[in-house]
Amino acid sequence: MSAIPEEFIKKTTALSDEVTRPFANSRKIYVEGSRPDIRVPMREVSQTPTTTNGANEPNPPIYVYDTSGPYSDPSVSIDLLKGLSDLRSAWIDERDDTEQLDGPSSEYGTERYNDPELDKLRFEHIRAPRRAKAGKCVTQMNYARQGMITPEMEFVAIRENQRLDELRTNPEYKALLKQHPGENFGANLPDTITPEFVREEIASGRAIIPANINHPEVEPMIIGRNFRVKINTNIGNSAVSSSIEEEVEKMVWSARWGGDTLMDLSTGKNIHETREWILRNSPMPIGTVPIYQALEKVNGKSEDLTWEMFRDTLIEQAEQGVDYFTIHAGVLLRYVPLTAERVTGIVSRGGSIMAKWCLAHHQENFLYTHFEEICEIMKAYDVSFSLGDGLRPGCLADANDAAQYGELETLGELTKIAWEHDVQVMIEGPGHVPMQMIKENMEKELEDCHEAPFYTLGPLTTDIAPGYDHITSAIGAAQIGWYGTAMLCYVTPKEHLGLPDKNDVRDGIIAYKLAAHAADVAKGLPGAQVRDNALSKARFEFRWEDQFNLSLDPERAREYHDETMPAQAHKVAHFCSMCGPHFCSMKITQDVRDYAESLKIGDVAVAVEEGMKEKAEEFKQQGAEIYKEV
Amino acid sequence: MSAIPEEFIKKTTALSDEVTRPFANSRKIYVEGSRPDIRVPMREVSQTPTTTNGANEPNPPIYVYDTSGPYSDPSVSIDLLKGLSDLRSAWIDERDDTEQLDGPSSEYGTERYNDPELDKLRFEHIRAPRRAKAGKCVTQMNYARQGMITPEMEFVAIRENQRLDELRTNPEYKALLKQHPGENFGANLPDTITPEFVREEIASGRAIIPANINHPEVEPMIIGRNFRVKINTNIGNSAVSSSIEEEVEKMVWSARWGGDTLMDLSTGKNIHETREWILRNSPMPIGTVPIYQALEKVNGKSEDLTWEMFRDTLIEQAEQGVDYFTIHAGVLLRYVPLTAERVTGIVSRGGSIMAKWCLAHHQENFLYTHFEEICEIMKAYDVSFSLGDGLRPGCLADANDAAQYGELETLGELTKIAWEHDVQVMIEGPGHVPMQMIKENMEKELEDCHEAPFYTLGPLTTDIAPGYDHITSAIGAAQIGWYGTAMLCYVTPKEHLGLPDKNDVRDGIIAYKLAAHAADVAKGLPGAQVRDNALSKARFEFRWEDQFNLSLDPERAREYHDETMPAQAHKVAHFCSMCGPHFCSMKITQDVRDYAESLKIGDVAVAVEEGMKEKAEEFKQQGAEIYKEV
Repeated sequence: MSAIPEEFIKKTTALSDEVTRPFANSRKIYVEGSRPDIRVPMREVSQTPTTTNGANEPNPPIYVYDTSGPYSDPSVSIDLLKGLSDLRSAWIDERDDTEQLDGPSSEYGTERYNDPELDKLRFEHIRAPRRAKAGKCVTQMNYARQGMITPEMEFVAIRENQRLDELRTNPEYKALLKQHPGENFGANLPDTITPEFVREEIASGRAIIPANINHPEVEPMIIGRNFRVKINTNIGNSAVSSSIEEEVEKMVWSARWGGDTLMDLSTGKNIHETREWILRNSPMPIGTVPIYQALEKVNGKSEDLTWEMFRDTLIEQAEQGVDYFTIHAGVLLRYVPLTAERVTGIVSRGGSIMAKWCLAHHQENFLYTHFEEICEIMKAYDVSFSLGDGLRPGCLADANDAAQYGELETLGELTKIAWEHDVQVMIEGPGHVPMQMIKENMEKELEDCHEAPFYTLGPLTTDIAPGYDHITSAIGAAQIGWYGTAMLCYVTPKEHLGLPDKNDVRDGIIAYKLAAHAADVAKGLPGAQVRDNALSKARFEFRWEDQFNLSLDPERAREYHDETMPAQAHKVAHFCSMCGPHFCSMKITQDVRDYAESLKIGDVAVAVEEGMKEKAEEFKQQGAEIYKEV
Repeated sequence: MSAIPEEFIKKTTALSDEVTRPFANSRKIYVEGSRPDIRVPMREVSQTPTTTNGANEPNPPIYVYDTSGPYSDPSVSIDLLKGLSDLRSAWIDERDDTEQLDGPSSEYGTERYNDPELDKLRFEHIRAPRRAKAGKCVTQMNYARQGMITPEMEFVAIRENQRLDELRTNPEYKALLKQHPGENFGANLPDTITPEFVREEIASGRAIIPANINHPEVEPMIIGRNFRVKINTNIGNSAVSSSIEEEVEKMVWSARWGGDTLMDLSTGKNIHETREWILRNSPMPIGTVPIYQALEKVNGKSEDLTWEMFRDTLIEQAEQGVDYFTIHAGVLLRYVPLTAERVTGIVSRGGSIMAKWCLAHHQENFLYTHFEEICEIMKAYDVSFSLGDGLRPGCLADANDAAQYGELETLGELTKIAWEHDVQVMIEGPGHVPMQMIKENMEKELEDCHEAPFYTLGPLTTDIAPGYDHITSAIGAAQIGWYGTAMLCYVTPKEHLGLPDKNDVRDGIIAYKLAAHAADVAKGLPGAQVRDNALSKARFEFRWEDQFNLSLDPERAREYHDETMPAQAHKVAHFCSMCGPHFCSMKITQDVRDYAESLKIGDVAVAVEEGMKEKAEEFKQQGAEIYKEV
């Protein structure tokens, strides 16, 4: 008999109905690696044939990077109360460098575990935590440096490739593989991602696989400048609103729409229990900001924070399976006064907490002074660092100032220390930055932080559009992603105004997916343009359903179309409501194409073709290259 | 007794109620020029005082560029049935180079005017059209080249400045005027826009004031790379849906949210009458694509188009007051086959119509062969050219290809011819372009088209997000605006899917307003950061109402805030629902600031301040410049 209230069970069952609905004409496939338990999920979107002018030419399926986990696989039965199946335990076991503990080793974790009052809230199938054996380092970085290719590394290599090698050998994809040369700003984007390439990138610190040994449910993914640009989503209750069910629902929702990682930023009640529910059901890596919970433990008084209780919080969360921790260890005492003349001071919650602590105690930030001890904890569970930018600018006026850059330099020093411990690191970045100052941020991060992956919030390119900050920031995100940022932290339309609801989360995610994709295309990531090409061909051929199905949000595309053209017949109509049946430029173009074809003999055809040749020649002479083969 | 049906009158009265509601704490002001009839509208947003820590410091009003026309002025009584008041007739009269005609001189205009069937649709207070006297050229370019500063030029100079000169001499604005140095890519952005500077820019062709002598209601505005980046909005019924009332409503709505110009792209019934309603009530310049109406006149058969009926259409529309015409004169016969291998062929409606005509007749585009005659018509009414990019790419794959660039070169040749006639010109641009190829478009346009203002649609930076193309394109628009595009043609969320409704129009406009603003900031336009600085200060001080009122969409910002924090008391709360009362970083920052202040004596203070000095010194030595005085 479960202690979980009926109400909760009903809600969680209801949500799985809503969010597990597969996308139309899509099929979950798994690409097997070198061993049968490496099964990499992808979404296969099938297409209808081209039937223009009575033709009947098949269009090949398109493979899409899939973050939705088992939720979109109809063959998997989802039970949020039991959690996802355990993908990685065998891999972790094999390495024989971890031990299973009897129970949580943190004081707080033990206390919560033994509190019968929490039975009604607690996830019921908690595994005993795992920890590195004494003297062992269980990080992917350590393995990589030892020359070992882990199943996690092979998994991400297959995942990044999205079957590109197979597509290259299949003539059906020849036209779809055409792609403009990118401008990569020094990124190294190989034609094929091999497991060995993944290993090298991780060994060098240029990429991370956030995968705590206590989060075996995670589908491994990689964050690095030489891979697809990723996006992070945030959820979290606060003292004012939201509940466990809502947060779990938002997590599944985030996975559905394309979130690559998810940060649980809860600051309200029952943080520990909420986190457990999220972790056990999340195929995405989960990040947290442990100082939020630590502060809650001292009733919001930052001056009462101590290293000891922070340390206990790290262990508590690491043993639950959090994959990366935001640690604001770069907020040094000497940087704090640099923010006093800012327009918006310190806007990072973690940053302001630590700044207040430093001033209250007249001491250096304890996250900085205890940094090596933090590394010791992180390496025992393979928690990755997300070195927090506590002094990031909160408005255009404060961008790229001495406080922000001072902290960034310190994060670079800390990166080196973490790497000495073989702990994986990424670096958090701004914030609010006008467009002309974005590139400098990227360049400085690469230099100061030794090419550790950059993970930025936006940046927002103007302050004057609250209610639309998913857009002000998608503009900056696309640019900084292009310049080399590895992961973009999403922003919802509610930024600065309130807590996002499900619709806001979806809007924020799609804005960031498209920004990340625009960045991949601009960098020249091999294969990045396939989906654009396929969708555009479908659009031109009035394959409406294919156009919807290939889009980032098939449901919204269909819904918008149906608002003005609801009839099913219109889904195959060779026009839409924007122009009506007689004015459709795409229809006219087809006529032009047919006509041009018919002109291939005769005087005019010769004249036309000569003009074309002349133009093409001229174009070539200018050194213009439109396409390269991927 | 009006012939207009009650139904229509009721609707138009109702709409003025909704869309004339002034924004909270805003006041319409008029800045007078060198003569009393030059009265330039602006919106003054008042602010509440700063009351942090018991202070009571006033915050000065912020002046905002205002496109909403008389609709947001409660002292003006709006009557859509009569149209707006006549701002420019005296200026036009004074120049004594025009004559009032007895009635429309186009065949089609006369026919419609005399058709009693149309009484129920027709705007009732039609003025007889005005035309240049024989041998006169009435364009702003001609006046500028003659050394004449017209009232229109003075009007836009005052409008562009937005009282910046006065703000500079007022100490209350000192901090708000701080701004980061821009990266202007060769734009010339003077500290103050003088009427003489406007004249020079127009004389050189680098800027235009679209202001037909038959659209005296227009509030003059300028489009040029050395001025604020502008945005264009589109409306238009089609054969499938929409009606006159809806279109007029959308026009007022577009003006309210910040559309600088508006294109009426109607292709359905009663185009002529709809246009009259729009023009008589529009404070914004109105553009059209005359070939759409011409095609309607030949029942959609492009091969039946003739120069004679197109010419009649130009005169018909010029005499109604259309301010700029999109003319696809660069779609040359020899470029058409260059599109045959494209993924999406020709996607411009005008472009495909002309391509089809060329092929059907085996003749060169009649817009090209009759270009000088078109110039003769344009100069008689001061209609500006918007030279259409009929061969713009409709997907990433087709970007920057030989067809697109061939046409652009031809547009450059045509620009020179138009300028020989003193006709104002802007150049239309793409479309769909991946980020790494956007800059090349701008550079090529500046070179090939002799710095005529560029007016681009987006560009969309990926094809895979139908339903979110206001965002895919705002990303490209912000970039190309920064590089030098003068006006950005908005895209709504319904792009590619259906006809936008009012909400889509609002979403599209705000996405483009923020993109244009981000571009102004990035270019370093003097004063561009004032509103960001003021809003950020309000945000930091928890002046919620000021934050809403200073934003691009005050109503949505307020609505989003109220979703999670509806109580009025929360509008002055020093926290919001995102973090709750105990975690607010802005509140903590204030504590830090107070604390830092209190530390100004004593050992720690010395240490802190030394750290700060050291850092600041280091920063200066790196040559970093954070602020410049505007």
